Amino acid sequence: MFDRSNELGAWDRDHLFHPATEAGAHTRGEIQTRVISGGKGVYITDKSGRTFLDAFAGLFCVNVGYGRQKIAEAIAKQAKELAYYHAFGDYGTEAPITLSKMIIDRAPAGMSRVYFGLSGSDANETNIKLAWYYNNVLGRPGKKKIISRWRGYHGSTVMTGSLTGLELYHKAFDLPRTPILHTEAPYYFRRPDTTMNGEQFAQACVDMLEDLILAEGADTIAAFIGEPIQGAGGIIPPPTGYWSKVQSLLKKYDILLIADEVVSGFGRLGRMFGSDHYDIRPDLITISKGLTSSYAPLSGVIVSDKVWQVLVKGSDELGTIGHGWTCSAHPICAAAAIANLELIDEMDLVSNAHDTGAYLRSALAEALGNHENVGEVRGDGLMAAVEFVEDRDNRIFFDASKKVGEQVAAALLERGVIGRAMPQGDILGLAPPLCLTRHEADIIVESTLKAVDAVFVR
Amino acid sequence: MFDRSNELGAWDRDHLFHPATEAGAHTRGEIQTRVISGGKGVYITDKSGRTFLDAFAGLFCVNVGYGRQKIAEAIAKQAKELAYYHAFGDYGTEAPITLSKMIIDRAPAGMSRVYFGLSGSDANETNIKLAWYYNNVLGRPGKKKIISRWRGYHGSTVMTGSLTGLELYHKAFDLPRTPILHTEAPYYFRRPDTTMNGEQFAQACVDMLEDLILAEGADTIAAFIGEPIQGAGGIIPPPTGYWSKVQSLLKKYDILLIADEVVSGFGRLGRMFGSDHYDIRPDLITISKGLTSSYAPLSGVIVSDKVWQVLVKGSDELGTIGHGWTCSAHPICAAAAIANLELIDEMDLVSNAHDTGAYLRSALAEALGNHENVGEVRGDGLMAAVEFVEDRDNRIFFDASKKVGEQVAAALLERGVIGRAMPQGDILGLAPPLCLTRHEADIIVESTLKAVDAVFVR
Ligand SMILES: Cc1ncc(COP(=O)(O)O)c(C=O)c1O
Ligand SMILES: Cc1ncc(COP(=O)(O)O)c(C=O)c1O
Repeated sequence: MFDRSNELGAWDRDHLFHPATEAGAHTRGEIQTRVISGGKGVYITDKSGRTFLDAFAGLFCVNVGYGRQKIAEAIAKQAKELAYYHAFGDYGTEAPITLSKMIIDRAPAGMSRVYFGLSGSDANETNIKLAWYYNNVLGRPGKKKIISRWRGYHGSTVMTGSLTGLELYHKAFDLPRTPILHTEAPYYFRRPDTTMNGEQFAQACVDMLEDLILAEGADTIAAFIGEPIQGAGGIIPPPTGYWSKVQSLLKKYDILLIADEVVSGFGRLGRMFGSDHYDIRPDLITISKGLTSSYAPLSGVIVSDKVWQVLVKGSDELGTIGHGWTCSAHPICAAAAIANLELIDEMDLVSNAHDTGAYLRSALAEALGNHENVGEVRGDGLMAAVEFVEDRDNRIFFDASKKVGEQVAAALLERGVIGRAMPQGDILGLAPPLCLTRHEADIIVESTLKAVDAVFVR
Repeated sequence: MFDRSNELGAWDRDHLFHPATEAGAHTRGEIQTRVISGGKGVYITDKSGRTFLDAFAGLFCVNVGYGRQKIAEAIAKQAKELAYYHAFGDYGTEAPITLSKMIIDRAPAGMSRVYFGLSGSDANETNIKLAWYYNNVLGRPGKKKIISRWRGYHGSTVMTGSLTGLELYHKAFDLPRTPILHTEAPYYFRRPDTTMNGEQFAQACVDMLEDLILAEGADTIAAFIGEPIQGAGGIIPPPTGYWSKVQSLLKKYDILLIADEVVSGFGRLGRMFGSDHYDIRPDLITISKGLTSSYAPLSGVIVSDKVWQVLVKGSDELGTIGHGWTCSAHPICAAAAIANLELIDEMDLVSNAHDTGAYLRSALAEALGNHENVGEVRGDGLMAAVEFVEDRDNRIFFDASKKVGEQVAAALLERGVIGRAMPQGDILGLAPPLCLTRHEADIIVESTLKAVDAVFVR
């Protein structure tokens, strides 16, 4: 079955509707799919035998790197023993139970329960529903709006696509929908007033958030959702003081805080959770990618005890909580996650993300920080971004139609390294597997420098 | 890691938030989780060693039965070779490409592309977004409402939970939301006017649908979604003529038809697709459970060429279609599906569902059809339902608080057979794996009869 390589291209063009695709160009064969067939560590190989250093870890998800046989074996073992049984009501299987304990052991303080789904998107759907249920149980039926941020990425179902604050994900889809509101991204490099320092800009963002809350009425706002560090929006670390100010505000107005740790969870920032890294105390946490390194589809909502107590009250009054997917708490996916979390510990990947991340970012800043078309090199942990500008001194951005970010990513790919042109702005994103070595970091930096030089011929 | 059986119960109570749970009762230990640890064919085993005949195939999803090593091996092989690479834009892996071809080969006429997700819920999210995108591209921005049916089940994200027409899935979750509308379920047994025959009732349902369309304005309605046979809503086959009348109506008003084949797809009705079985010609088809027999989480939207052409036009005008999940087209899940579809053919399960399904249903009708508390025995293919009533002659239903359906399911479980108390009404649902033998069907029928007799002591 797996050996029909000649026909693959035709089948792909004729039958596969890819995510984030240009349907027309793909169907007409103007875009050729690169079929990936293997991988080891930070490297992947395509069917033609070419090898690439994947400096974006798939979609910043393959945190342990490719080809980890320990996880493959855990998957194989579970598949042979029992591939599936559901977890609805009073049924379950062993692996997700064990995993729930392992997650709570690693989670920030105050967390007590895990609800398992399949994707970051569905976990955020669960979060929205829980925030509404919570306020219904507490007798506040009007407190239902959710505030998200521009440049946030929280998924692409209807409601999570609405939370997402990127144009690409709204276009022609009638998103965002009520009751989702957006507030400013804490994007220091793009601050409107360049005379502000980080702390002043953080205060300005928080003031705008407070204005929004007051304009809408605090008694209409259920929750605020944010990634500890904005990821798909451009790899944007929060300015100093941002999160502590946001938290005080949310506390003042009794608004739940949802930390979307789909990218930052399980080590990417050099700490097990981004919430601990930035001293955030969320009520709900979204997890997915790093949980299994995407070896199997799995997501989760980590529920704080504060929220759980209200769910308990709700179900005592209303009965069964009517929410769930057929494959919630799937045993194979949970088995993959268990092996993945063990591997993160065994390989000491969280520390490596911290150390090699710092190394990568400083090498990148050194190599590119003074380039005339580089506006900023930024990041945290093992996430880095290089943002390109037409005029550095006057912070003038390129016209979007020039697709400068995509040009750099393409030039980098030609040099054997996969980075990602972030969807909005001319930003090259780097988020390699957490097992990255300094030597591999050097390769990424050298190749990036060459790619940048090739695109911006002086 | 998998050997902490003593602590499992505590971890489960303290840390796992089950789908469709009574959170309070579970947390306090009033509900004990039955941990399933193995299975073979139609049988599953729990950790204490008790074996059950699973006459509901998990959540009507384990169509090939438990313990199929062919699928386990396909999963293991893919996990070892390449556990994950994404399919965004111009990347992909081999298994989902092969699978897309296999699905289109089996799909009803007119279908051309497959978009892969993880759950039936997310596939229906995709459907809603595609219906909206479709009408935006066609310059009909006002044509956006989606009509679903009471007792439909289409998922439990915010929008698919809104499509779902069951009270349990709306309660305290602020669902359904605009722009979702509901119309009558084609539930003959519960028809308001008992003098109607099936054809008359079908016409009445379609008249109500037309009234709704006219009241709202046809130019505001994007799509109609329905399961070919209503599943979670009570296993309700359509009355004769229903689908052909619905189709004519939708055609008249230029409304897309979404067939949700999450349950009926891949053989459950004794035909590969329910759409072919009932002669439905949908524009979009939702698939999930039967696609992998839930050995791995996978869903899909099968897109007709008619809709695809509009997506092509849209992406040519607007660029990348901004929609996708990180684990869309996951290679391990696709490999599981390939093996599963092969197994369905090799084991001739579609024919068996037809034949053994007919056998099961007629044996059930014979055993229970005249019982004074049985209002109806119904079904199609390998799906059957027994609906209980307090007074058969006057069609008086039990008070919901008596939980008669749950009592019967519990009595059946005591006899070693798993059936499902459907969430709304006193209905025992049966949907065993498609590999069911006549001998196993006899066991189900005998046990059901005993369970019914135990609950309704005369
Ligand atoms: C922060 C964040 N949240 C949610 C998601 C959605 O996850 P998924 O693609 O699994 O639905 C993503 C995906 O990139 C993400 O980066
Ligand atoms: C007809 C139908 N559609 C959609 C779904 C949702 O699928 P999932 O539970 O995988 O989200 C179900 C689940 O039972 C279903 O029966």
